Amino acid sequence: MSPRYQFRLRVYHGEHIALGPGKIALLDAIARAGSISAAARELGMSYRRAWLLVDETNRCLREPAVVTAAGGAHGGGTALTPVGEALIARYRAIEAAALAAAQDEIDAINRLLTPQPPSVQG
Amino acid sequence: MSPRYQFRLRVYHGEHIALGPGKIALLDAIARAGSISAAARELGMSYRRAWLLVDETNRCLREPAVVTAAGGAHGGGTALTPVGEALIARYRAIEAAALAAAQDEIDAINRLLTPQPPSVQG
Repeated sequence: MSPRYQFRLRVYHGEHIALGPGKIALLDAIARAGSISAAARELGMSYRRAWLLVDETNRCLREPAVVTAAGGAHGGGTALTPVGEALIARYRAIEAAALAAAQDEIDAINRLLTPQPPSVQG
Repeated sequence: MSPRYQFRLRVYHGEHIALGPGKIALLDAIARAGSISAAARELGMSYRRAWLLVDETNRCLREPAVVTAAGGAHGGGTALTPVGEALIARYRAIEAAALAAAQDEIDAINRLLTPQPPSVQG
């Protein structure tokens, strides 16, 4: 079992977190589920919490990442905008670029680690 | 006030976190303070918690990052080993390389953000 390197990126905009791992997971779930409430359920968070996270991200952006159609043919579905899709794609690209750029240093840390992970202590 | 991008890296080794932001901060504090208890105080954590974090990192490594001299001229001080110093340096190098590599994508996200951060809601 090889060591695993996980980058997490947070984007602070003033006092706000415009973007972070939780918000990206939420945008992703909204894109799949088609509503904030279904996405919240999928992620095990309250609707209120999910709504506040979406609102915080939207307020940090020139154009919103998530829009809700009030009524209409689909009865008020929620969807990502092109900005929301771009945010997810760029966030993932940043994490991939970060890992690639750090590969030499990661290899150096790997050589300091034990060949096998230590056992879990009770 | 410009947006701020913060990378946090975690290194998982089996079930353990070999290295992460908290452990790096602790190693750094131990190097400065010369003891686990003073470092724990500085970071506002219990001695037990700090000791467990150091132990977890040490057990993930071929050679320890932190050693305690039992007794001796300095009465049992605790210090970083060369491995511990290398870990801090490489961890910081990874974060810097990650930010540099992601600069184009970061600029693209910046262009999606509002010019000024939104106000804080009450």
